[in-house]
Amino acid sequence: MKAIKTAVVGASGYTGAELLRLLLMHPAAELVCVTSRQYEGEPLEKVFPRFRGVQGSQLEFTAPSADTIAAAGAEVAFLALPHGVAAEYAIALLEKGIRVIDLSADFRLNSAEVYEEFYGHPHPAPELLDEAVYGLPELKGRSEAIKSAKLVASPGCYPTSIITPLVPLLEKGLIDPASIVTCSMSGVSGAGKTGNVLFSYCEANESVRAYGVPKHRHLSEIEQELSIAAGQAVQISFTPHLVPAHNGICTTTSATLTGDADAIGAALEEAYGDSDFVRLLGKGQPADTKNVTRTNFLDIGWDYDPRTGRVLLLSAEDNLGKGAASQAVQSMNLMLELSATEGLQNI
Amino acid sequence: MKAIKTAVVGASGYTGAELLRLLLMHPAAELVCVTSRQYEGEPLEKVFPRFRGVQGSQLEFTAPSADTIAAAGAEVAFLALPHGVAAEYAIALLEKGIRVIDLSADFRLNSAEVYEEFYGHPHPAPELLDEAVYGLPELKGRSEAIKSAKLVASPGCYPTSIITPLVPLLEKGLIDPASIVTCSMSGVSGAGKTGNVLFSYCEANESVRAYGVPKHRHLSEIEQELSIAAGQAVQISFTPHLVPAHNGICTTTSATLTGDADAIGAALEEAYGDSDFVRLLGKGQPADTKNVTRTNFLDIGWDYDPRTGRVLLLSAEDNLGKGAASQAVQSMNLMLELSATEGLQNI
Amino acid sequence: MKAIKTAVVGASGYTGAELLRLLLMHPAAELVCVTSRQYEGEPLEKVFPRFRGVQGSQLEFTAPSADTIAAAGAEVAFLALPHGVAAEYAIALLEKGIRVIDLSADFRLNSAEVYEEFYGHPHPAPELLDEAVYGLPELKGRSEAIKSAKLVASPGCYPTSIITPLVPLLEKGLIDPASIVTCSMSGVSGAGKTGNVLFSYCEANESVRAYGVPKHRHLSEIEQELSIAAGQAVQISFTPHLVPAHNGICTTTSATLTGDADAIGAALEEAYGDSDFVRLLGKGQPADTKNVTRTNFLDIGWDYDPRTGRVLLLSAEDNLGKGAASQAVQSMNLMLELSATEGLQNI
Amino acid sequence: MKAIKTAVVGASGYTGAELLRLLLMHPAAELVCVTSRQYEGEPLEKVFPRFRGVQGSQLEFTAPSADTIAAAGAEVAFLALPHGVAAEYAIALLEKGIRVIDLSADFRLNSAEVYEEFYGHPHPAPELLDEAVYGLPELKGRSEAIKSAKLVASPGCYPTSIITPLVPLLEKGLIDPASIVTCSMSGVSGAGKTGNVLFSYCEANESVRAYGVPKHRHLSEIEQELSIAAGQAVQISFTPHLVPAHNGICTTTSATLTGDADAIGAALEEAYGDSDFVRLLGKGQPADTKNVTRTNFLDIGWDYDPRTGRVLLLSAEDNLGKGAASQAVQSMNLMLELSATEGLQNI
Repeated sequence: MKAIKTAVVGASGYTGAELLRLLLMHPAAELVCVTSRQYEGEPLEKVFPRFRGVQGSQLEFTAPSADTIAAAGAEVAFLALPHGVAAEYAIALLEKGIRVIDLSADFRLNSAEVYEEFYGHPHPAPELLDEAVYGLPELKGRSEAIKSAKLVASPGCYPTSIITPLVPLLEKGLIDPASIVTCSMSGVSGAGKTGNVLFSYCEANESVRAYGVPKHRHLSEIEQELSIAAGQAVQISFTPHLVPAHNGICTTTSATLTGDADAIGAALEEAYGDSDFVRLLGKGQPADTKNVTRTNFLDIGWDYDPRTGRVLLLSAEDNLGKGAASQAVQSMNLMLELSATEGLQNI
Repeated sequence: MKAIKTAVVGASGYTGAELLRLLLMHPAAELVCVTSRQYEGEPLEKVFPRFRGVQGSQLEFTAPSADTIAAAGAEVAFLALPHGVAAEYAIALLEKGIRVIDLSADFRLNSAEVYEEFYGHPHPAPELLDEAVYGLPELKGRSEAIKSAKLVASPGCYPTSIITPLVPLLEKGLIDPASIVTCSMSGVSGAGKTGNVLFSYCEANESVRAYGVPKHRHLSEIEQELSIAAGQAVQISFTPHLVPAHNGICTTTSATLTGDADAIGAALEEAYGDSDFVRLLGKGQPADTKNVTRTNFLDIGWDYDPRTGRVLLLSAEDNLGKGAASQAVQSMNLMLELSATEGLQNI
Repeated sequence: MKAIKTAVVGASGYTGAELLRLLLMHPAAELVCVTSRQYEGEPLEKVFPRFRGVQGSQLEFTAPSADTIAAAGAEVAFLALPHGVAAEYAIALLEKGIRVIDLSADFRLNSAEVYEEFYGHPHPAPELLDEAVYGLPELKGRSEAIKSAKLVASPGCYPTSIITPLVPLLEKGLIDPASIVTCSMSGVSGAGKTGNVLFSYCEANESVRAYGVPKHRHLSEIEQELSIAAGQAVQISFTPHLVPAHNGICTTTSATLTGDADAIGAALEEAYGDSDFVRLLGKGQPADTKNVTRTNFLDIGWDYDPRTGRVLLLSAEDNLGKGAASQAVQSMNLMLELSATEGLQNI
Repeated sequence: MKAIKTAVVGASGYTGAELLRLLLMHPAAELVCVTSRQYEGEPLEKVFPRFRGVQGSQLEFTAPSADTIAAAGAEVAFLALPHGVAAEYAIALLEKGIRVIDLSADFRLNSAEVYEEFYGHPHPAPELLDEAVYGLPELKGRSEAIKSAKLVASPGCYPTSIITPLVPLLEKGLIDPASIVTCSMSGVSGAGKTGNVLFSYCEANESVRAYGVPKHRHLSEIEQELSIAAGQAVQISFTPHLVPAHNGICTTTSATLTGDADAIGAALEEAYGDSDFVRLLGKGQPADTKNVTRTNFLDIGWDYDPRTGRVLLLSAEDNLGKGAASQAVQSMNLMLELSATEGLQNI
């Protein structure tokens, strides 16, 4: 029996669809409410023909409303909404006692000022910022915080791939925080399910380019978490790129070694050796997006270049998976005292 | 009438095929000899069905031999051979008075010691290293050197995209040479026409990964040219990546600004404002591989991040074009006193 | 000197862009006017960054107007407009003595009734239907008609690949006209430069499907030309498919042999053996889109299956090239007494 | 607890890998033996980095041997071996009382003569042909036969997509068996995990072409099953195509209607309306490979063209899934009295 009742708000995009996919297959969770203004009244399987014939896929989209979600009996609601909009639903759902896992940026930052600087409008619910937990369960103590959280801010796609390998090195002072340079490459689904011609097949295929330089919004949460780890303000150089793949993020980060090169592998091992979802590939082993797509895995390899004195961190994840939907389900598992890997073991 | 007689040695791979394509269409050059052990006796158009029915495509592959090439009357020979092998043909062809444009790495380095360090065997013809000209025509004074050269070492694919934007900044002391970090993303044709299953469609599609870290062979020529420009030894951090595209290289380089940010654009403009093939996109404009594939263009954009004090250089080229074959044809044009753009204006 | 002045009306889509590319490179044609409401006032090279730095690419888009086109001195105008709209411009341009090559469907059909049946609205200029020449130059006598035409209706992408191999067999009565079954596979550019999410990268990548069944609009012109060849009304079964490629159409047609199998190759050879752009691959040789993209070639192979008594015709072309833009330029060459291959020899 | 012990023989290719993926995730099956000469002694997760960290992925490849498989306690063995080789293992395994699901062609045909005609060598074990069950569980009575079978011949990728929609129409006499024309489009994984340069990324990307005409090996099993359904010998025209996708087969079949058009949908509904894995899309609804990849679903749409009197059957499946590995697991479920959908519900 599927004991846990869940809702997905704003389920018509790629992140929403991936959440639906994971929850339809989840052995312990049941979808009781999915919302979409655009698809109100239509069953999931009509909007997403891939789900056709799967148990639960006859559920119909409803208009988004906290009342409807509460009436359906949802214990947990996932918000796959644009930033700014998500906060409004979070407030209403929390008031009804429904725990919220927000996949937007609205509650990822501790500071309303930084939010306004990066997102261009005042924070819509600053009073909730203290309560929200940044849901990167692999960080020290974070799983415990998520377990008891009412409001989890699930991390962005780039941040997960960048923060995770860097944190243990910063915590141990193995690299110079001022020297961090990151390049990420994202598949096109990162742009969302969009009619923007820039992301049409003919424009995105056979096209490789940087974008969003030099101050991508995700920098705010990246630097927040790195600063916590380093115990000092950290700013990094970050360049995202769009590459012709459906999903996946490959991230290459380098930084100047300030400690012992052998300590790099040891620090990663200490932090993630027992992790369910971080897979350490070892020295000289690049991470490949094709090994992690449609999973909750984050693969991490590393190397050291004695010529330049720089450490290389090579990570890969699915931008819609560990970078969004499956990471949010991982938080749900923690919040509901399920096994962390429940419903997340598909490969 | 096509006045200039040319030969291509080792014409069965992707670089060779691109050379053939350019020379078949070139208004002033004629292919008189193409060699391939594998395809000896077969006409070009059988091996490359794309060329079928095009004037000149009935020419048959011959076994590689300097005598045959000389007998065919070639004035210029392109070598699209593996390193180590190319040198042997270069010696034989130069002895017969045939000018050589070598697309391998054999003559790109000034130092036989550095060659041995990076390529793992002694240099096959160290006596020719002084004579060879590193054929990046956009560099200051390089066009003149190419015009009179007997032996041109045509640059590698990554180096062209990395060296070209950096040189003017290093020459003017605008960036810290010790701070350079480069990420490049290459299409799969960079691996050559190969039966290696790693580059099969199903392995390379939907796969994004770093490789060849931390000491890629191309670093040797990159650092050689950057050191000349900087007037001091330069070592850079360079991470190449493989992305699911046919061709194209996108390169993102960052370095700490040591001068005035406004000087960046001015330095690029001064160096390349009149260039036929370097297209300056301006500040905040990323370069996209899709705009340069099958051309000899190198697109360069740039940006400055005041948060980290780093300059961003964003460049794109075709790895088989400006990164290999069309750049070699550009050298041929210079050597034979043709217009630099002859046969290279297709878009 | 580029002697012939040309205009492109509606130059902002993929067919328009391909026309611009061909005309910018054409040795005898000059672009004097390009129109686009959307991009009025912007230079070509800004809208199409690939053209940047190419001679002629500074030309600015104007609003579409026959007066403007005439004032610019255009002798020939290409219409890359939606059906229904094209006719209106054709009328105005012809009145000003400007010859018109229309890439829409407006003048492809001899019958206004059939037009209305397939396109859903009355024909906008039935009085011009007699004057228009269906511009498939490889058909018997068609080149002559094109040479003197004031109005050429350039064929659709699917029709060229289907009609061309069938016509000689129908003319010679080698196949049963009632037995023709065609499957075509088109790259995504066939859908145009569109913001429709169906053609976004993430929807079109890794997706293969039929569409537009069972009565695709192109059937009307296909059956018109086949009926002429057969000397009787012909109706065919035609199923187009969308495949994850940028451009290219691969067509497989089969029909019951009614004559001698050996006569198939002979009939194709007789019809197209001397053609500049039809390349006969021979028996048992499938045509591959990758050999014809960005060219004006149509590759045709064939086979015979004695088990079922069916002939197989295997053809490939570029939907934007021989299926649209380069075929239109081929008509222009004929109309202006240039060599048929001028500006169309790039590979 | 995973109660059923399974073995996979020849597990290093794409079909083998998909079998491993499904069995590693299967709630009731345990992998106890996997064989590969090439990878002997290496753990699954090293050969397939995607499986890293998943329970069971530490299992090591062994050399293929019926003794080893028996010693490991396998009840069922899957053979993912080339035809000709598979039979040899089937004999040895059956002798040890291990039930066999063979994914090769060795036991798909009822006739050793037809086998020799299509596969070019005498059948290696003609005495087993009577015993083998052609494992297309959706066919009438086939599930029952599979349940008690010792040896299941799991169908080829093309046949499943072609046979399934045709059988109900042939059984009811709704179409003319002599009029069947099929076009299929397969992703590149259909060629196997191969170093053949024809299937390298740069050769297969942006390439669409027919191949294997006019007498593909799969015709033998297709026509066998169609003949059974029609009650008369059936021969069809079948043209497979290679398209640039990782996996998936899209099939379009047409045939002349001999009955009532309305009966088409009814016949499909009667045959497959209750099927777990055949999803009927209805009239005018094309099947799209992107909705079935990595699943055991076969999607079927259909249409009728009154102009030509032909019925269109539009089907899609994953060539590695319903066309190979997941179909084989479906047979295993039947043989072991599990729910048919066990381990096959992932989307």
